[in-house]
Order: sequence, then C-alpha cells, then structure tokens
Amino acid sequence: MSQTINEEDSILLYLNRKRTYLVKVEKGKSFHTHKGFIQLDELIGKKYGTRIASSMRVEFVALKPTLRDYVFKMLRRTQITYPKDVALIVMFSGVGPGSRVVEAGTGTGALTSALAFYVKPTGHVYSYEVRKEFIEAARKNLEKAGVSEYVDIKNMDVTQGIDEKDVDAVVLDMATPWLVVPHAYSALKGSEALVSFSPTIDQVVKTVEALKENGFVDVQTIECIMRRMQTERGKTRPETLMTGHTGYITFSRKAIKQ
Amino acid sequence: MSQTINEEDSILLYLNRKRTYLVKVEKGKSFHTHKGFIQLDELIGKKYGTRIASSMRVEFVALKPTLRDYVFKMLRRTQITYPKDVALIVMFSGVGPGSRVVEAGTGTGALTSALAFYVKPTGHVYSYEVRKEFIEAARKNLEKAGVSEYVDIKNMDVTQGIDEKDVDAVVLDMATPWLVVPHAYSALKGSEALVSFSPTIDQVVKTVEALKENGFVDVQTIECIMRRMQTERGKTRPETLMTGHTGYITFSRKAIKQ
Amino acid sequence: MSQTINEEDSILLYLNRKRTYLVKVEKGKSFHTHKGFIQLDELIGKKYGTRIASSMRVEFVALKPTLRDYVFKMLRRTQITYPKDVALIVMFSGVGPGSRVVEAGTGTGALTSALAFYVKPTGHVYSYEVRKEFIEAARKNLEKAGVSEYVDIKNMDVTQGIDEKDVDAVVLDMATPWLVVPHAYSALKGSEALVSFSPTIDQVVKTVEALKENGFVDVQTIECIMRRMQTERGKTRPETLMTGHTGYITFSRKAIKQ
Amino acid sequence: MSQTINEEDSILLYLNRKRTYLVKVEKGKSFHTHKGFIQLDELIGKKYGTRIASSMRVEFVALKPTLRDYVFKMLRRTQITYPKDVALIVMFSGVGPGSRVVEAGTGTGALTSALAFYVKPTGHVYSYEVRKEFIEAARKNLEKAGVSEYVDIKNMDVTQGIDEKDVDAVVLDMATPWLVVPHAYSALKGSEALVSFSPTIDQVVKTVEALKENGFVDVQTIECIMRRMQTERGKTRPETLMTGHTGYITFSRKAIKQ
Repeated sequence: MSQTINEEDSILLYLNRKRTYLVKVEKGKSFHTHKGFIQLDELIGKKYGTRIASSMRVEFVALKPTLRDYVFKMLRRTQITYPKDVALIVMFSGVGPGSRVVEAGTGTGALTSALAFYVKPTGHVYSYEVRKEFIEAARKNLEKAGVSEYVDIKNMDVTQGIDEKDVDAVVLDMATPWLVVPHAYSALKGSEALVSFSPTIDQVVKTVEALKENGFVDVQTIECIMRRMQTERGKTRPETLMTGHTGYITFSRKAIKQ
Repeated sequence: MSQTINEEDSILLYLNRKRTYLVKVEKGKSFHTHKGFIQLDELIGKKYGTRIASSMRVEFVALKPTLRDYVFKMLRRTQITYPKDVALIVMFSGVGPGSRVVEAGTGTGALTSALAFYVKPTGHVYSYEVRKEFIEAARKNLEKAGVSEYVDIKNMDVTQGIDEKDVDAVVLDMATPWLVVPHAYSALKGSEALVSFSPTIDQVVKTVEALKENGFVDVQTIECIMRRMQTERGKTRPETLMTGHTGYITFSRKAIKQ
Repeated sequence: MSQTINEEDSILLYLNRKRTYLVKVEKGKSFHTHKGFIQLDELIGKKYGTRIASSMRVEFVALKPTLRDYVFKMLRRTQITYPKDVALIVMFSGVGPGSRVVEAGTGTGALTSALAFYVKPTGHVYSYEVRKEFIEAARKNLEKAGVSEYVDIKNMDVTQGIDEKDVDAVVLDMATPWLVVPHAYSALKGSEALVSFSPTIDQVVKTVEALKENGFVDVQTIECIMRRMQTERGKTRPETLMTGHTGYITFSRKAIKQ
Repeated sequence: MSQTINEEDSILLYLNRKRTYLVKVEKGKSFHTHKGFIQLDELIGKKYGTRIASSMRVEFVALKPTLRDYVFKMLRRTQITYPKDVALIVMFSGVGPGSRVVEAGTGTGALTSALAFYVKPTGHVYSYEVRKEFIEAARKNLEKAGVSEYVDIKNMDVTQGIDEKDVDAVVLDMATPWLVVPHAYSALKGSEALVSFSPTIDQVVKTVEALKENGFVDVQTIECIMRRMQTERGKTRPETLMTGHTGYITFSRKAIKQ
C-alpha cells in the first residue's frame, strides 16, 4: 500500500475526533472548513499522516482513510450498524480472507464494505437488497472504499431464497431475519455461521426461535455497550453522553442430521 | 476449505454453550465426557456440523473450529483479552489481508492468532514476547489455529525497540505500553494505527500522555461492555452474571511533521 | 439513636466487604469465624464502630446494622431485589415519612423493610403475600430490622383486589404485576405512583400495556446496571465480575378523568 | 396529604415524559405551551391527577409534584447529581426519618431536598456551601419543595471544619471531598456513613485514600448506569441515547479505636 498521497486519492482530513472530512485530492482544488481552507495540491507527493495548516493557520492531518473511516462515513446517514457491531459481526461470523459470504440487506453498504474488506483477496460477498433505491448509493460507497470488485449486489428479496450454495457465512441486518433462516440453512456449509443484527427484542426472539426450529445450534445473543473515556490526568472519567443501544447480535451454527 | 472431517483434523465437539471440547480426530480413539464417550472414527468422512450421539445417547455436534473458538480456548487459561476486545482491536487497528503488524506481548497467542488470521495470505505478524516461558505454548497455539506461518515470535523486549519499519499497525497488550510508544512511532507508516489494550485506568492515562507527546493524533479510549441475552419467549432477559470489565482499548494514528 | 452497644442489640461484625456477620450481642456468648472467635461480652457498653480483635488477633469492627445491611442479609437468600433497585423503587414511588403504601409480594421482606424504614414514624405498609410459607420468615426479618410495627403482612392474593383506599403508592415485585394494575388504580390517590419490578421483558411489556389501558400516565421503564470500582492508586479499574441484570423498574402515575 | 388542588399549590403539568411544567396555580392565570394554554382556575378544587384539555384540545395531566420532580427540575440547570444517584446516596448513607445529616456543597439544593425529604419530621440537614451566589437559589428551591424547615444552609467552607457533632451521616457532592474526610470523622457517630459523589476517577482515588488513612472501613466505590427501555409490543428495545456517566459513589463507615 502506497505511503504517498497521489492525485485522485481519497484522504481523511482530521481536525479533531468530531471533525473529519473525507476528501478527494484534486489538482487546483481547495477544501473549505470553518477553520479555513486547505490547498489540496500541496498534499500531492506528501506522505499520509502529514500535518498541514489551513489558511487560518489551524492544523489538520491528512490521514489515509481506513475501513473504519469508510464505515463511519457511510453510517452517518443511517446510523443502523455501528463500527463496534460491525467488528463483532465479522468476528462472530468467522469471515476472513477467502470466505464466501451472503449478506442482506445491503443498505448503505457499510457492513458490506467491512465484510468485503476481510474476504480479500480471494473471497466474495453476495449482498441482497430488495429496495432498489439503496443500490446505487451502496455501489458508490463500495467503490469509494475500494472493495467493489469483491461484492455482487443483488436486487433480490432474500426472504424468497438464496441462490448461492456452500457459503461460509450468512450475515443479516434487516427487518425480518427470521424469514431468511431456512434459506440460510440451505445456503450454508455445515458448521458455518449465521449472524443476525436486530435493534428490537421482538426480532431477536423470533429469529432465535426460527434458528432452533431449523437445525441451528450454539445460538447465542449478545449486546455490546460501548463507552468512550475522557482520558486526561486529573479529569479522567467516562464521557457523559453515549449511545445506549444499537442492536442485539445473534449468532448460531448449522448442524447436520447424520 | 474442506467440508469433510478428515483424520488428524481438529474439531469442536459442541454439547452446549458452556461445554465445548477441542479434539483431534484420531483413528481408534474415543473422547470421554460426563455425558458418555464419542467414537471419533465415526466422524471421519462426515461433514462438519454433523450431529453425533454419545454412548449415553446424548447429542453432540462436530463443529469446525473457527478463529473465535481458538481464541476462546487459548484465553480460558489467562483471561486477558476477550473475543469482543480482539474483534474491536482488529477493527480499530485497520489490520486486514496483507497487513504487516507488530504485536506485543505474545502471551498465549490469542490476539496473535486473530491478527494472523486476518492478515492472510500475504501479510505478516511480528510478535514480541520478553517472557521466554510463554513462547513455546504460544507457538503451539498458533500451530493449532493454523496460522503459524504468518507469525514470527520474537523473544525480545519491545520496550527496547522495534526492528521492523513501515508497518501497518502496532498492537499492544502488555503491562507498560507507554514505554513502547516512541518505538511504535518509528516503526509505523505515516497515518497508521497504534492500538493498546490495558485493564487499568492508570495504564491508559500514561499511554494517552505518551501518544500525545510523541506525535500521534486521533487518540481515543473506549470500553466495551458485553452482555448476553437469555432469549426465550416469555422469559427473555439479560443474563444475571456478566463480565463487568476486561480492559480499555486506546486507539491513535501517527501524524508526520511536514 | 443510641451510640452504645447494649445487650441483645444486633451488630454487624465487619471483617471485609465480603465477610460481614449479623450477630446478636448476648452475655457469655462468643462468635466464631474462620479468623478466630470474638467475645461478644467485651462489646457491651462500647460505642458502635469499635474495632475488636478476634482470638487470632484479626481485627473486626462492630458496626451498627443499617437498612442496607438488613436488606442485603435478607436478599442473600433469594437474590430477587437488589439494594440498588430498592433505592430506585423507593425514590420513584415517592414514598417517604408518612406515606401509606401497598406492596406485593412480601417475599423475604427485604423491599418491605425498606419501604417501612422510610414511611416512619406515621406511615404504614400493607404488604400482600399469597404464599403462606413466606410469611413467618418475612415477619422475623421485619422484626430484626426493627420495622415490624409499620407493616401489616396480609396473606391474601393481591390479584384478587386491594382493600386499602387512597394510598400514596403501590409497589409490586411479583410474577404477574399486570393483573394488579386495575386494583392498584382503585387503591391509589390521584397522581400517585405505581412502581413495578420485573426480571423479564415479557413481564414489562404486559405491565406497560395494562398501565396504559387503565388510566396511568408517565409510564417509564428503566434498568440500572451497577458496577463496583476497584480503587487503588496504580490499579484502579472496574471490577471484573458483576451482576449483569436484576430487573427492570416500571414507573407510572394515576391520572383521573375529569 | 391533600388530594385536592388548592390555590397557590404547585402542580406538575404533564404532557409527555419530555414535556412537564412546574406551575403555581393562581386565580385568573393561564399557562401557555406550544400545545395551547391552560386555564389554571379550572383546576382549583379538582383532584390531583385530573386530566385537562388545553385551548388546542391537547390533554395534559395535573400531577402532584413529587420529590423526584423537584430534584429533576432543580437539576436541569446544573446536571450534577442525577435522581438515580440521589436515590443511591440516600440508601447508602442510611439517612431516614429522624437522621441528622451534614451535607456539602448545597449547590442548587437538589440533593439537599432529597435528604431533607427523608429525614422528616424530626431529623435535620446541615448543608455547607462556600459559594455565596448559590445560596439564595438553593433556599428558594428548598421552599418550593416544601422542605426548608428541615435544612440549615451554612455559608461556610466545609474543608475548614464541621460544627456539628454526633451526626448520622456526612454526604459530599463537591470538588475536593478528600479534604473533608478528617472533619467528617470528627463529626460522625461511630459506625455511621460518609458518602461522596464525584465525576472523575482522580477524585475517587484521593477520597478513598483519605478514608483509609482516617479510620474509615467498608470503603466501596460503585457506579450506576441507568438505561431507559422503549416498551411497546413489537418494538421493545433500550433507548438509543443515554447518559453514559454522571459520577462515582463512594461509601464508607467510621470505625473507632478501642
């Protein structure tokens, strides 16, 4: 991976935790903020991580956007899946380099991007999305995040069936995951995981029941509460405001009758 | 990845969430539990995920062990890093296929295994461990988890320096992470991440101060509290007992003077 | 309140947080622990809070038992309501000196004791318990806690009706609180509170529905997660193990049609 | 306690959880909201809890303000102590009817009001506040809450000493609680409690050290995280936003050398 900023690269202009900007470096362009503007030209040929002063002499840092940054930026719009949940879903699903994964729904493509990032370079993500209006934006997001070649977005209703066979994981972030459980059973290799993310308890109960009725074992539901710390000698404390709930993650594995 | 259980394969015999056994399938061997024994021969040639009855007619499932299972099994001994923290550390570090990562200390190899799993097939993990007595066990754990070719365990004191240059991430789970911060700065590519895991607040404060003094930006500390749900219609509730604290995760990125 | 330990007083012998003993001071008696025995005579005439050495020269402290100690000691047996929940129930119920309160079920009398403690000296608690076998033990607990004169325990089924009228609060810690809601409405003064404690979400949903259908307003459900801190310079951190869930507290107030 | 709304009474006009108004009922006055105005006259002689329609035909409820409502209303301004913390502080302090309590600082009087409410009718609260500018507002708040006769607000610096002797509890919600510990020891009866509330870990560590050095035992620090539930069949879930941290509560009891 290149360490030098080139024309047409995306960078993450960092001012502070709450002010970061995903910007494309284009010749002759400047980027304007409430703390002054930045001549993007000046960054070409510099290393990622370079500090740069704005016209108001405020320091920014030109960071290389990571998966986490793309996920965050995509999520600002819908707030559905949070990075901590993305991390746990990836871990619990067992998805890694080479995995073939079915996912639904695509939404903005945030979770899709994460899955695609980890299946590189030989794996693939088949992402189902029934709502046509989401697909174009998701595709652009995947391109921005540099993972579009590892994903097929399919404008199909996953509750009607899954085309793929012998997949390594099924990951669901949708309103009615329990309707997909029998199809997921057919699509998965033996022993492999179905992971579902749902905000409400009612969804979780229905999904857990469907999993138990359809031959899945090791069914577990967890919730992860993340709290930021304000860390400063003499003033250290958890931050006052936090997100109290994003959703529950349900995990299970396919068992086979002998 | 093969879907069939072969001789010498490791399987995870699943009875219930609290009773899982990591077992090697060997000809002529049986595996004994308090719910009867299982003839391992019978599993050879079967698919992963196959249900099998013990001599006491209790059903087990022969699962394919995942990264998460290996991490769990390694951690039962030291309880230092929990799977949820492993997931968040991987996500925040930006580590993925192809990454070159420096890690310290190796410990039982749980976090090392996770990092190695995600850098496959072209990345590498350089894992520092000063305590000689840990190294052999860690090496065996990496072999069991099938990731040893992606890791160099180095019996060196990381507080004295890091040999590698231009690495994509530095991940620390050790008693004195603040002493490694200047070395990590030298080892990292611009913009890339240092992630540190510490149980106490005092460690976090010292590490955050060292990061700010040594040219890192975007310094954030979070804590993740994970709670299991008991999900059963009419009896749904969070579980009574939980782990209240494992540790704090501190994240930061290297900035460069222009 | 007397500051001196008298014969027949109950004291709390404190060794450490996890080792406290509720003991009656009787002449000629000694109290035996794994850290040696204590001559209870020696404490007569001493002030509460006095340090005393056991026969093994280990220091104990003779504390005056508080409401919280009695509640804790009663709860060790059933673990149903936790002190934090007791505190919140009291606060949300609006119960204070002079209040007339209906409570169900009595159980071991832990929550009953707390309510009785706070309604002193002119209020009263009417505590319903349908299970005969609980009543004797509860009565003894109330006596030990010194609040029995403020409580009537009634061996009646509260789901069949409440005898009292114009009460200041109804507090429920029982399996089917929703069945009591119409009776509670009749028993309460206008504007006053019904507070219900339930471990499962299913109970909460049914109770909230009953409250909304029966003329209650300001219906709110909360959960309180309590975590201990290990506080020691250089080793400060939340404790590893914690109680993840006790129950949900639902609060509401009676509205009146004009 | 009267069940009827009289002239000059304070009522809590309830629209929904987030919209409640503390209003004095005065003849000829109306109260204006974004949902229309309410003729306060009409409420005189009605029962507390009565539903009343605004000029825009939106229903409000005329509730009787409780301690909790006063505490909430006072806290909206400073956000220092939250009702859940007030509840726990009261419980842990052992304060109840008849207790004599020293408190510092008075602040807006929220915690003072709660303590005064529970010591009624024979106890008393001595509340120290060094900042003159807070005293007038606190006094008004105590009057509104109907508890001013149970409180002496003292414009004195509690870190310089406590006048009272043989008190039943010392409750601290101030920046430097550790400086008060020796004075609290002198003021307290043997066995009785000091309870301190602090937002930062650094304050907690200093206070715990002072307590241990000054003859206190049973020193414990806890944190309470409160989460609201959205309870609605089919949509039940914890609420998205929550307060992640208010402060730590440290509890201890005075031991006496023999």
